[in-house]
Amino acid sequence: MSEQYPFIKSSIKAVADYPKPGIMFRDVTSLLENPAAFHQSVDLLAKPFRDRGYTKVVGTEARGFLFGAPVALELGLGFVPVRKPGKLPRQTLSESYELEYGEDTLEIHKDSISPGDKVLLIDDLLATGGTIEATAKLVRQLGGEVTDAAFVVALPDLGGIERLQKLGIESHYLCEYNGD
Amino acid sequence: MSEQYPFIKSSIKAVADYPKPGIMFRDVTSLLENPAAFHQSVDLLAKPFRDRGYTKVVGTEARGFLFGAPVALELGLGFVPVRKPGKLPRQTLSESYELEYGEDTLEIHKDSISPGDKVLLIDDLLATGGTIEATAKLVRQLGGEVTDAAFVVALPDLGGIERLQKLGIESHYLCEYNGD
Repeated sequence: MSEQYPFIKSSIKAVADYPKPGIMFRDVTSLLENPAAFHQSVDLLAKPFRDRGYTKVVGTEARGFLFGAPVALELGLGFVPVRKPGKLPRQTLSESYELEYGEDTLEIHKDSISPGDKVLLIDDLLATGGTIEATAKLVRQLGGEVTDAAFVVALPDLGGIERLQKLGIESHYLCEYNGD
Repeated sequence: MSEQYPFIKSSIKAVADYPKPGIMFRDVTSLLENPAAFHQSVDLLAKPFRDRGYTKVVGTEARGFLFGAPVALELGLGFVPVRKPGKLPRQTLSESYELEYGEDTLEIHKDSISPGDKVLLIDDLLATGGTIEATAKLVRQLGGEVTDAAFVVALPDLGGIERLQKLGIESHYLCEYNGD
């Protein structure tokens, strides 16, 4: 379940035909440039997870860093980055996932999550859920518990919410766009 | 001029032979995983720049996001991301810079900086200074003023501090490593 925050929604610019014709891109960089909207987003993302026993926040390169790191600080937790292949210097675990054309791979440091860690996933936007599913799988392979993921924006038409639900992960988000 | 913070320095792992043999990599992801060290780093990075008239914080993909976004929030400023080519959806300005082998390009949204903006540059690590020089040039081409850049780690032997000095930019950092 998620509430809607018009102030935050209105700070997100729509960019037509990016990254390709016919796509209406939701641009969170305009939110970041607005200090009040950025501050409130981080506050609202963190709020449901205060004092609930979380031990780590995980965010995925690169836009997941922009909200994940501040939410971790807000909750007083450590932040664990999930990155593209070859970017993390210590021993890593990898997970590949399908894109519209081809596939992509994400990595996590093996020693960054311990069995029993209760992990909150943060990203800017939930679309098909491929990235966040791969991220959740990495955390779970290391013994971390994942039950919740929070996003600034959700595009419910693209099926990510149901996809995460099937994995036992509830999606939280601050605003949504449907078929527009 | 910069002070040294042993607590922060000790939270940064050294990874030998990454990204290639003979290199001792300073891994800030271990700092991020330590909530007290992460919190203190952001606090110390922001501190010299409070109430000094800054209007924006700029950070470069991807590790610059991890410290830049929290420092922007801490200072109550908007955050402007500088990214790899093709990643920003609105109209961009590009700047190329030399790497050891070949070159790389960075982009900024043209409408993200206005003439008169006073911009603080944040990154995780200052080595040769190539990335931060390209970032400063992008900001200045848009009319922004850049006089200071702050880093968690500096490697003074690699010349980045002098390189930025020649551009009229003072480097601030929380800890340094020399020839080790």
